[in-house]
Formats: sequence, C-alpha cells, structure tokens
Amino acid sequence: MGMLRWGAHLLLLLLAAATWTCAGAGAGVTSEYRRKLEATVDMPLDADVFRVPPGYNAPQQVHITLGDQTGTAMTVSWVTANELGSNTVRYGSSPEKLDRAAEGSHTRYDYFNYTSGFIHHCTLTGLTHATKYYYAMGFDHTVRTFSFTTPPKPAPDAPFKFGLIGDLGQTFDSNSTLAHYEANGGDASLFVGDLSYADNYPLHDNNRWDTWARFVERSAYQPWIWTAGNHELDYAPELGETVPFKPFTHRYPTPYRAAGSTEPFWYSVKIASAHVIVLASYSAYGKYTPQWTWLQEELATRVDRKLTPWLIVLMHSPWYNSNNYHYMEGETMRVQFERWLVDAKVDVVLAGHVHSYERSRRFANIDYNIVNGKATPAANVDAPVYITIGDGGNIEGIANNFTVPQPAYSAFREASFGHATLEIKNRTHAHYAWHRNHDGAKAVADAVWLTNRYWMPTNDDV
Amino acid sequence: MGMLRWGAHLLLLLLAAATWTCAGAGAGVTSEYRRKLEATVDMPLDADVFRVPPGYNAPQQVHITLGDQTGTAMTVSWVTANELGSNTVRYGSSPEKLDRAAEGSHTRYDYFNYTSGFIHHCTLTGLTHATKYYYAMGFDHTVRTFSFTTPPKPAPDAPFKFGLIGDLGQTFDSNSTLAHYEANGGDASLFVGDLSYADNYPLHDNNRWDTWARFVERSAYQPWIWTAGNHELDYAPELGETVPFKPFTHRYPTPYRAAGSTEPFWYSVKIASAHVIVLASYSAYGKYTPQWTWLQEELATRVDRKLTPWLIVLMHSPWYNSNNYHYMEGETMRVQFERWLVDAKVDVVLAGHVHSYERSRRFANIDYNIVNGKATPAANVDAPVYITIGDGGNIEGIANNFTVPQPAYSAFREASFGHATLEIKNRTHAHYAWHRNHDGAKAVADAVWLTNRYWMPTNDDV
Repeated sequence: MGMLRWGAHLLLLLLAAATWTCAGAGAGVTSEYRRKLEATVDMPLDADVFRVPPGYNAPQQVHITLGDQTGTAMTVSWVTANELGSNTVRYGSSPEKLDRAAEGSHTRYDYFNYTSGFIHHCTLTGLTHATKYYYAMGFDHTVRTFSFTTPPKPAPDAPFKFGLIGDLGQTFDSNSTLAHYEANGGDASLFVGDLSYADNYPLHDNNRWDTWARFVERSAYQPWIWTAGNHELDYAPELGETVPFKPFTHRYPTPYRAAGSTEPFWYSVKIASAHVIVLASYSAYGKYTPQWTWLQEELATRVDRKLTPWLIVLMHSPWYNSNNYHYMEGETMRVQFERWLVDAKVDVVLAGHVHSYERSRRFANIDYNIVNGKATPAANVDAPVYITIGDGGNIEGIANNFTVPQPAYSAFREASFGHATLEIKNRTHAHYAWHRNHDGAKAVADAVWLTNRYWMPTNDDV
Repeated sequence: MGMLRWGAHLLLLLLAAATWTCAGAGAGVTSEYRRKLEATVDMPLDADVFRVPPGYNAPQQVHITLGDQTGTAMTVSWVTANELGSNTVRYGSSPEKLDRAAEGSHTRYDYFNYTSGFIHHCTLTGLTHATKYYYAMGFDHTVRTFSFTTPPKPAPDAPFKFGLIGDLGQTFDSNSTLAHYEANGGDASLFVGDLSYADNYPLHDNNRWDTWARFVERSAYQPWIWTAGNHELDYAPELGETVPFKPFTHRYPTPYRAAGSTEPFWYSVKIASAHVIVLASYSAYGKYTPQWTWLQEELATRVDRKLTPWLIVLMHSPWYNSNNYHYMEGETMRVQFERWLVDAKVDVVLAGHVHSYERSRRFANIDYNIVNGKATPAANVDAPVYITIGDGGNIEGIANNFTVPQPAYSAFREASFGHATLEIKNRTHAHYAWHRNHDGAKAVADAVWLTNRYWMPTNDDV
C-alpha cells in the first residue's frame, strides 16, 4: 500500500512537472464577450460608401502608400473609369497652392470577363518629413483634392501611432471597423492582408476590387502599408487566371525596390522610431529563395535599433494562433523564420487570416532538432508578442472556435470584430490597445504596455 | 528504502518507455566505407565530354524529356550556337526512315554578361508506347541522329527501371556517376535537382550550363525527369538577375501543362506502373498557393493506384536527412505536406541536396499539434521510404558529417558518391539498389526490396 502510494505520488509529481512546462506564465483569458451574433453581410452595391464620385471620368479609389522607405516620397494611386485620365498629381502646402506636379504612369488588366479601369500610380518625391501636403488629380470640375502628413524622420524617440487592421472586406462590419479606426486616429495603417474578398464572388468579380477601393478611399489621408493575404492570390486556373496576385499587384504598389527587395510582397519601411518588415505568407520562403535571402540581409545589415528601436513584422498567416480556424497553417513559415525573429529581438509580429482577435505572451518554439522532442512553445523574453488582428469584419464571418484549453502562449483571445492601435511613445515604451466594434471607438477591450526588446527587454507579459 | 526503490523503479520504467518510443525499429547503419578522400574537381573546359560537335552550327546539348504525361510525346531540346538553326526534328522507326517531322520553337536569354545560344525545343507527338524511335536535327553534314524508346503504356504490372541521380555537376566524379549509371541501364532518369552548378562560377558563368548539357548529352537516349534544385535558382540581384530559375526554365522544359500544373516546377508523369510527382522546394507551398492547390488535387483526383500502383515523389531538399549538412532545411515543406503523402501511402520520396547517401525507414512525424509535444518521428507502415541521393559528385564535395547518434528513422547512410536504381517488377515488388562510384558499376552497396504501399503494405524496413 505504502509503496504503491509512493509510486503514485511520483507519477503525479512527474505529471505535474509536465503540466508546469506546458502552462508557462499562467492562464490566459478567453473572453466570453458577445453582444450579438456577428452579422457579416456585404454592403449593397448602392451603398453610399461605394458611390462613384460625380463628374465624367472623375478620379476614384484614391489611396496612398509610402513611395520610399521613410516617407519623403508618397505613391498616390487612383482609377479613371471612363477613359484614360491624366497621370499627373499636383501637390503643395495648401489646397490653393498646389505648386508642384508629379507625373505617374497607368496600367490596367483583364481578369476573365472583367477589364479594369485605368489604374494610375504617381509617386510624389522630395517631401519633407512630418509635413502636411495637399494633393489633387483630375480636370476642371472633377478635380479631387486630398491631403496627408508625411511621417516623422526616423529617430529613436520619435512617437508614432499605427493603426492595425486585417481581413477587412466590405461588409457593414468592415465599415464599422474603419469608422472606429478613424475615430482613434492613427497616423498610418499596418494592414495585414485580405483586402476586398472579391474572390468570394462568382468569377472573382473584380468589380468588388473597385467597390472596396471606393469604400476605403476615405483613408487616403494616410499611408497604408500593405501585406498580401490569401484573398489577394486570385489564382483561378479554372478561369484561365494563373498569375498569382494579379489584381493586387496592379492596384496596390509597395515600396519594395527602395527596400532592396525584388518582389512587391516582402519589403520594409522605416517610420518614425519603427522598422516595419512585411513578409509574404504565400510566396516562397525556403532557404535560398529570394524572400529568405532578402530577410537574412535585412535583419543582418539593414535593421538599426539605435535609429529605429521598434522592430515590427507583418505577415498574413499567424504563427501563434489558438483558434481552430486556420490552426497550424503558419507552421511551415514559423519553422523557417522564427529563430531569426527571436535572435533579432523583434518586438511585435502582426498577422491576420483568422477572423478573431488574439494576443500572445512572449513565447518561442525554437529548440526543436527533430530528435530531442523539444517542440513545445516556451516563455522567452527575446520573443515577439504575436497579435492576430484578422477581425476586420469581412463576409466570411467571425471565427468562434478556440482550441481548449487555451494554450500557455495565448494571453487574450476573443471572437469579436475590431481593430487595434500601437502607439509608440519613445524608444522604451509603446501602448498597444485593441478596440472591439461593439464598444464605443475609444473603449479599450484589451491593452498592454510593451517595452522595447532592444532598449528595455523587461518582462511585459500580462 | 523499499518505498524509494519503488519510486526509482517506476521512474526507470517511464524512462525506458520513452526510450522505446524514440528507438523505433532498431539501430541503423552508418557505413564507414571510404576508399579515398573524395576529389571533386570540375573537369577542364577542354575535356572530351565538353567537346562541341564538329560542323558549323551543329546541334549540341541534346536532351529529351516527356512531352506529355505518359510518353506518347517526347520533347527534344538542343542548342545551335553559331546562328539560329532549324527548329525541325525528323523522326521515325529507323535512322534511314525518319519519315515524320515536328516543328519546334526556339528561345534564348541573357544573363548578366552572357547571351545564350539558340535553345530549341520540339515536341514529337503521336508516339506509340514501348517503341524505339530515331530522331535527328541539323543540316547536311551536321545532321545528328539519336534514338529513344518510349516507356510502356501505364499499366499496373508494367515493369520499369528508373535511374535515380541528384546533384550531378561536372566534375570527374560526376562523369563517374554518369558512367556507372549508363552501365546499369535504366530506362528513364529521375533527377532530383542541381544540374550544372554554374552558379558556383564567377558571375554564375552560364557557359557552364552549356558545358554541362554537352557532358550529359550522351544520356539523350532516354527521358530525364527534372526537379528544380537550389542551384537552378540563379537568383543574383547583385548582377541584376532577379527572375528565379531563368537559365533552367529556358533550357529544361517539363510537361507541367499536361499534368494540370501552371508552373514548370511541380508536375507529374505516369511511366509504366509508376505515378511520379515532382515537387518544388524553392517555390511557394503554403496553403492556398498554386503548388499546394495542385498537389491537393493531384493526390485526391489524379493518382490512380489501380492503374499506376507505384507512387513516387521527387523534391530537392530532403525531409528526412541526418547529415549536419543542410540538416532540417526540409522541415518547412515537411510540416506542410508530410501528412498528405502519408495519407496517400506514397511508396518512395526521392531527394538530393545533401551530398551523401541516405535511406530511411518508413517513418512519419505527423502527430504534432503544437501543444502535445508529439514531434518525434515514429515508425509508420503507411509512410514512404525517404532516399537522399544527392551524391552525384558535384564540385562542392562530399558531405561527411552525420548527426550522432544515427536517428531511428535512418536505415543506412554513407558519405560516398554514387547513384541508385529503382526497378519495378510488378504491382507489389520493386528492387531498389544504391551503387557507389568506388565500386564496379554492377556492385551494390545498399539494396532493399520495397513492397507497394497500396497493393502489399507489408513491413519492408531493413
């Protein structure tokens, strides 16, 4: 009896040790918040947000992104639909003083039975940091004027507020997300992929790329940093469409050449005190491939934490996701790149793809060597916080099927639509906040102060 | 005392159980065979194997591959170097009776400071299975005549002998490998990538693509099934060369369209009783990508084990490799596709990349779910045998640094150059043999009878 009890105690002790290993930094939160079942219906084509601007051939679908790595150039994109419009953008310091002009180019594409309008891209160069510019395109009564403010010059303590949005689509919920984000006032948006969801329509109806761009045009006052998601692939051999990312690459330029990249799907920008790296979940990343080669050089030679302390990585498919929806899809990329990101002390990794919200603790899973069995994520102060922000509100609906129990790496998760902001204060501190759409825009549903991994690598897990 | 002993016994019992789990089917063989240090020096440019055929503009660098999925078409490729030669191939049942003609096309490419010759590709169609054909190209005294035998019509018991070669290069050892292979007489070669190693020369000297093709021309009597390796990437942004696989795609066509693929790097062929799938280690394979989509459909709808019992998969970067050279490089692709291959009961997976030889037991590593820790390869009767055959003898030399101890999944490994053959006898049995170059061609250094996973899934691990 006594001996058996001893054996049983030892067994329990061993099991308990195993449990400790798995449990890490204590139990995470699976929020049960739910106000209503999420309705995810696309806005009808006659919705006001999709309205074509008045006037023959008026410029529409205006959006901007960085035209170089730091924002002394800005690329303006728009569409003229009736005939080939001018490629010229006039710009200057006030709406009345558009005393400079830049000449762009245009492109168009066919997709099965669809032919795009004339898609214009024009890069405004020679801009000054942290300066407001007005810009306009079009003729006579169709002239449309917008403005943006260039980001601050890269500097270690330059504050900046990013908006974090993913998987937006064009439903009523998408509109709510965008409205909430506008109310929270970021200076640039880090968009983690899946824009229009046009591919969910019959024949990948590319008119839905047009409506989406009209819907989001109201954000043309700030640059969006684009990540390619699976809904940008538009790979449809059954329609004869075999070139991946065809609509996306024609419509959404990225400053990849300025970043030393050779494809638009992976690149980097340096905004204020942040170095932002965009990775491509749907391009090749095996050793020796162009993306692998680029990222290796980027981390080794081009990231400078003394100039830009905050190192942020964007991708579409998350590595740390505890929703059954898309569970483990990011594994193939994680095993390739995770060690590099931990070694580089990346501060935050942002992903989308999963239509719910999740924030991780600083965990890593980099000890595995095939034969040692060490494949369980473990707390690591050098590891990034992983944020899944694929809750933009697209037509596919909410992903409300979390794995049980909540794994140790998961700090907070909730199946609601929303967006987040990352407000960098200085080289050591940034405030991260997630806002659910059911609340008022200013309400915060999950928040954490992040300390910089290079300048203040303290334990900031909560 | 007694109680402590009980606890210790239980601990030992648990440890022993853990050991059993790891050990699998018993200890593998790490062959210590070594006759001499491997000399891997490229053959000089004036070597006889590189000789340009006599006559102005004579066709050179002749090679063939399947022109459709089963071999009723054959694509002939060659180069004319002095001026644009004819695209015509004449063919027929004897050298004197070339009574049919096919018209091909030509291409050429620039690579940094190199301009290729005129690269001709011509597909001979309407061929009969298991029939010898003679084919010729060129004019007058430069006419060059070759022959091939089409493979048997796909049928479940059709015998066939494949040659298995990888990482060949153009050293004296490469020549030995090819000579040994010729002596062993396969009917078609499954080549697992890394052809010329031109990228190891300054500026990726593409003349080495030409010399390699002249060296291997003596194999133009049989189709080679090509896999793209990392040395086919020729990605060199520092030279302004940013399109991956540029020389390879211009020179080595694959019948990918016939296989329902949209890129030349992944496709399949059906030869006799074998369905051979070629995968691309250096293209995208994440979920939703073209390769992922194609492979899913291939396994679900196009593989028919009743017609072609033997399912063989080729790739460049191995999933099961216990050499420190390139250790774990295949992990990223393995975690994406391994379960599919096990579910499909693939018979054999062939890879290269590692410049030594290794054969695995039937092991799989597909139980991992991030939180369960089950990441150790385990015996699985449905799993393929993994063969690493990157020992063709290229300039980079032998990879003689195996991991210690030899992992349970590894059955036999040896750091020698060589090639292998896979001789399918019928729907249930195939004889696999590895030949090291130091031996006479007919000598066998490692061999195993494989039983078919669909028709006779017995334990054939030795």
